[in-house]
Amino acid sequence: MKACILAIGSEMLTPFRVDTNSLLITERLNAIGYDVRLKAVVADEVDELAEIIRAAMAWADLIMVTGGLGPTEDDITRDAVARTLDTPLDVDEAIADRIRDRFARRGMTMPEINRRQAMVPRGADVLENPNGTAPGLWIERGRTAIVLLPGPPREMRPMLEGVIRDRLAPRSGTAGLFRRVLKITGRAESDVDAQVQPVYAKWTAQPVPISTTILAVLGQIELHLSAQAPSLQAADTVLDVAVLELQTVLGPSIYSTDGRSLEAVVGDLLREHKLTIAVAESCTGGLLASRLTDVPGSSDYMERGVVCYSNRSKTELAGVPEALIAEQGAVSEPVARAMAEGIRTRAGTNVGIGITGIAGPGGGSPEKPVGTVAVAVILDDEARVRTFQFFGGRDMVKFQAAQAALNMTRLAVTRVQGPREWAERK
Amino acid sequence: MKACILAIGSEMLTPFRVDTNSLLITERLNAIGYDVRLKAVVADEVDELAEIIRAAMAWADLIMVTGGLGPTEDDITRDAVARTLDTPLDVDEAIADRIRDRFARRGMTMPEINRRQAMVPRGADVLENPNGTAPGLWIERGRTAIVLLPGPPREMRPMLEGVIRDRLAPRSGTAGLFRRVLKITGRAESDVDAQVQPVYAKWTAQPVPISTTILAVLGQIELHLSAQAPSLQAADTVLDVAVLELQTVLGPSIYSTDGRSLEAVVGDLLREHKLTIAVAESCTGGLLASRLTDVPGSSDYMERGVVCYSNRSKTELAGVPEALIAEQGAVSEPVARAMAEGIRTRAGTNVGIGITGIAGPGGGSPEKPVGTVAVAVILDDEARVRTFQFFGGRDMVKFQAAQAALNMTRLAVTRVQGPREWAERK
Repeated sequence: MKACILAIGSEMLTPFRVDTNSLLITERLNAIGYDVRLKAVVADEVDELAEIIRAAMAWADLIMVTGGLGPTEDDITRDAVARTLDTPLDVDEAIADRIRDRFARRGMTMPEINRRQAMVPRGADVLENPNGTAPGLWIERGRTAIVLLPGPPREMRPMLEGVIRDRLAPRSGTAGLFRRVLKITGRAESDVDAQVQPVYAKWTAQPVPISTTILAVLGQIELHLSAQAPSLQAADTVLDVAVLELQTVLGPSIYSTDGRSLEAVVGDLLREHKLTIAVAESCTGGLLASRLTDVPGSSDYMERGVVCYSNRSKTELAGVPEALIAEQGAVSEPVARAMAEGIRTRAGTNVGIGITGIAGPGGGSPEKPVGTVAVAVILDDEARVRTFQFFGGRDMVKFQAAQAALNMTRLAVTRVQGPREWAERK
Repeated sequence: MKACILAIGSEMLTPFRVDTNSLLITERLNAIGYDVRLKAVVADEVDELAEIIRAAMAWADLIMVTGGLGPTEDDITRDAVARTLDTPLDVDEAIADRIRDRFARRGMTMPEINRRQAMVPRGADVLENPNGTAPGLWIERGRTAIVLLPGPPREMRPMLEGVIRDRLAPRSGTAGLFRRVLKITGRAESDVDAQVQPVYAKWTAQPVPISTTILAVLGQIELHLSAQAPSLQAADTVLDVAVLELQTVLGPSIYSTDGRSLEAVVGDLLREHKLTIAVAESCTGGLLASRLTDVPGSSDYMERGVVCYSNRSKTELAGVPEALIAEQGAVSEPVARAMAEGIRTRAGTNVGIGITGIAGPGGGSPEKPVGTVAVAVILDDEARVRTFQFFGGRDMVKFQAAQAALNMTRLAVTRVQGPREWAERK
């Protein structure tokens, strides 16, 4: 089943906005077997939108349109659909009444302009919108179902779930495009690809083939596996085997096979092992603490964090000896280690992390260029200390350094020696 | 001049990817007077892409295509364009030589498959790609220019700049779509819209009309002004006046008219007034410190931050009396104020910030529901303390709380009483 997703609105065509509705819609449609073949963002022009809908009707089983259902002249979706289908728009008085009631409940009178939202192409089914005035519409023409939903995510989402459950899933049976995402960190993309390519190459010839995409995003690599299968169960069977094969090859550099973020994985490990954590950050400036505390329930294991942006604060907050900073430089493994040890001792936690580095754009030197970051993770009697050379701008260096610290923590808690990880006994 | 932007690749149609190339392309095209009317992401299918290009040729002055220029069977952009234009593909031996050289410089032999990248629709001009093997292509047919660029941003960007400078800008003259973005925080969208609507309504009837879009994003509102003007100078003249009118109406709730983030605005103010800052955070978990330190050069004014996730750490790191926490509760204005005062005194800075609240999803109560956050900003002898009720999930509460603290700091440094801001003398 082929689908097309259209987002309507000139404001979506500025350099400042991306259409994120389509990501959720794609995910939900894939899960019931629709293959999204085209996504487009279209300006508020009746003729242009009508032309695109007409073209998509030639091949699409489903055209999902979001936006352009408001009450103003700019809201052209209803008109464009009526024009494409060569069908008149009628006012549906039941919708007009509901909109009027909605205003009345807030002590307001419905502006006359809102009657536009009660216009329905003849033959369309109305989809109720519990969170707004614009109802959705469902129209079938030949093989193609056209679904119109409002643009605001808060209104669109529950309506999408309803239309998938009640109308689209029954049409598509149980077949679907099922996905798994494996997340990997601490490795180079080319290394990972070289290792996994022989594994995934043979999946394309299976009875239930799996297609594999490798995506390198900042500080991590994602492997996306997609199986077009007759049922969820059939997909699970092949995908479980595939994930196992990749885990055999890649080992502990895979940190997540269920979509969890690295901070959530670390949090779950800390909770499982009943460990507490405290962090002392310099160049990451609080990003590591912020990521750790993005996880609901993180107050169970996160005791404190300090951001030592001055040398004085490294001494006062993390007990780093002034002489050590003078001798080794603020960006050095001994200072990172002293920060981790100092914060761990003061907070009385199991884990202490110290990060010190040069986020840039200033502050680099030939010996320690921008992107040099020393990270120390101490868990009970074991310290892991490592110096990284990250690339990119300030925010990229911050993110990669926090990512590295989280990954070292994950490997320490699971007592795994990471790839090229240097561990020592205290 | 009307433009259409197409991104090619089935991997761009998963739930995990957005097409960000189109944002940069839109910005650059707007600046030379092109109005982007349609953006689409298209699967790797020759027929479907050819159909879309054919439809766009009916109205577009420019069709900008990114991606699908690689060496594999999946890379279908060249074929689709040739099919649309009904023109043969020839191998350009000069391109093949350059690709061969590129491989040779790395000590490799060009795989035969890469000859596909030397295929050129007859009559096309080749656009050099300094950062990759896939050259770009420029084709004119009737009123429409078709530009093919590779998908990877590192390759696409310099080629885009070149084609705009050398080919597109000369065609469009100096006319353009010029934009300003005003950023506002601490206000409700409906308030702002009610206040500014009478102002911007009259701009549409000017000789150089300005269209206005209001966008509410988490914790801030953006007003986007666009003027379609014959020259940058003509646009600047009307846009300067428009910005001034909005500043008169909205006053200090506008924090930026030049694209700067709130943390950058606060940083510039601190530097300008030679002030230093230290922060004590609970529910924001380091996000405020991280945002402050996202700004290059922030070590000039940022002295330290502490993340007091336990009550004990509030006492140890920010000197909050245990009795005060017991008496008032950890989430209270007196505790926020004690955190701000404590960190300011210990760090010896001009500004101290304290934040304590309930980020959720747990921890709420009927008196203090999830989203309750107390923020204190102390600057020299003046304290501002305020309690907010934010909406949304954990990360949204964190962001809004950090945003509020930054805004209170901005208003304190400029000695402005914010809207509904409560200030007191110590």
